[in-house]
Amino acid sequence: MKDNGIQSCYQRIVSNAAVGVSTLGIRGSEVVNEREENKRTSRVVCITSGGTTVPLEQRCVRYIDNFSSGHRGAASTEYFLKAGYSVIFLYRRGTCQPYCRSLPDDPLLECFDITNESNIEVDPAHAEAVKRAVSEHHSAVIEGNLLKLPFTTIFEYLQILQLIALSMRSLGSSTMFYLAAAVSDFYVPWETMTVHKIQSQSGPLDMRLAQVPKMLSVLRKDWAPMAFCISFKLETDTKILLEKADMALTKYKMHMVVANELLTRKEEVIVVSKSGKITVHRDKNQAGADVESPLIKLIVDRHSEYIKDMGS
Amino acid sequence: MKDNGIQSCYQRIVSNAAVGVSTLGIRGSEVVNEREENKRTSRVVCITSGGTTVPLEQRCVRYIDNFSSGHRGAASTEYFLKAGYSVIFLYRRGTCQPYCRSLPDDPLLECFDITNESNIEVDPAHAEAVKRAVSEHHSAVIEGNLLKLPFTTIFEYLQILQLIALSMRSLGSSTMFYLAAAVSDFYVPWETMTVHKIQSQSGPLDMRLAQVPKMLSVLRKDWAPMAFCISFKLETDTKILLEKADMALTKYKMHMVVANELLTRKEEVIVVSKSGKITVHRDKNQAGADVESPLIKLIVDRHSEYIKDMGS
Repeated sequence: MKDNGIQSCYQRIVSNAAVGVSTLGIRGSEVVNEREENKRTSRVVCITSGGTTVPLEQRCVRYIDNFSSGHRGAASTEYFLKAGYSVIFLYRRGTCQPYCRSLPDDPLLECFDITNESNIEVDPAHAEAVKRAVSEHHSAVIEGNLLKLPFTTIFEYLQILQLIALSMRSLGSSTMFYLAAAVSDFYVPWETMTVHKIQSQSGPLDMRLAQVPKMLSVLRKDWAPMAFCISFKLETDTKILLEKADMALTKYKMHMVVANELLTRKEEVIVVSKSGKITVHRDKNQAGADVESPLIKLIVDRHSEYIKDMGS
Repeated sequence: MKDNGIQSCYQRIVSNAAVGVSTLGIRGSEVVNEREENKRTSRVVCITSGGTTVPLEQRCVRYIDNFSSGHRGAASTEYFLKAGYSVIFLYRRGTCQPYCRSLPDDPLLECFDITNESNIEVDPAHAEAVKRAVSEHHSAVIEGNLLKLPFTTIFEYLQILQLIALSMRSLGSSTMFYLAAAVSDFYVPWETMTVHKIQSQSGPLDMRLAQVPKMLSVLRKDWAPMAFCISFKLETDTKILLEKADMALTKYKMHMVVANELLTRKEEVIVVSKSGKITVHRDKNQAGADVESPLIKLIVDRHSEYIKDMGS
């Protein structure tokens, strides 16, 4: 897990992230004391969302990025909040935000207008969606149930995730990691990285990328040994998808692995766990229904069983 | 300029872009007829902004991206509109938009709130900036002076740029290309690109990237031989910056090259042209002043001289 690139980012992010996490950490401890009144509110899930980047130059102009709109993470955040969880939303800057899924890309410029009296007015076609986004997002944040922490590079992502895991550790089995972010598999180690922008006039570019150390094992073993852990497997080739999901379950000791295929990922996912495989579909008879609704129901039930098992 | 990747994107984008460009094309011809009344309004500038991506897989999960916030392109758009130009803003999805530079990243969630009467209200601290963004952006768009066309991959970028150039061709020397986008230098040709997501378990990844064919020569020679063309050169190493800017001026026959260094690019730029080098600074004595204000003034003057020379 050691890398100069990771170390060099640490100072920059640690102050912001630590302040944020400790805010929710306090909230977490408070609700633990209220546990007898309402078991559900003591639960905290860390949802990771969007893709990480790996810089190709130290003074970075170019980087490799992993495609992810962040739609899955944003939708899941809404359903976990609805189910009574506190959510730490660790998201890639610029990706989809909770309660904003039905809005256009650039809501300020596309949903608002200026009236004759030079007042700002919401376009009636978007009024309901805008109101919902602003009010539900705002409520979740001010009630202390939603903490949002942004990342861009894989170095920021790994460091903040570690901080979150360590700060949530005292909450034991009530915590969950829902790792929907598309994390880079390959990177250029800091010591082999060119300092300046790579020049283009000298013909084709040959690059050797190293494998990113697998964080899942470290998370399960050292950072958060009591947490309920769910990872995601995205493939474009259905033939190898389930095989790879099974492998992640055994190798990284995940409690559940959500297998999704690039083209059908909004319609169905396959949830792989020790007790077998369950295919979860979007309810096609219900307008606007999404696959995250039944998926989070299933996961919350399994988390309840897990908490019970760990407590007994 | 031929590439299967470029071809395969063509069908997808051509309909949208063609409709959009022809809308502004008509506007362009209209104002050309009004030229005697007001010379300035007949001018059209195509501003490119943000970075292009190159996919690493055909069913793309990973891609190489060029860092660019799009701040330069967005700021320049405002100043060109102020100078009476019509602007075609060819921008990377998700990057900085004109009139939105002083707003937070996620203006809807950060600038608005719900009042007790469940009305949406703007946070007083951001009220002026929000009002300005909505009203000035809206005016520019409905008056037909601002056409916004988004891109993500380099294939989309090159195709749309070609469409714009061809549709603006009849306007001759009144047109300008202000190429501030960070265009990829390297890509994976479609025919050598892996179909599925690259697997990570088999050790380090070796990649060979080909050079992207240089579009600047083709633009100057074939697509828009009469247009006033400005390209940008960004380097992190000041030692080679001016040398490379000079090279771009001669090799690609640009009328001006704006040289900027990654760390100081918001403070000063060096404008390189046949008549010499001019350093343009931000006015440090004026609050909120930016380097684009004097830069666009200089460019507009040079464009005026160019139009005069071409007409005589």
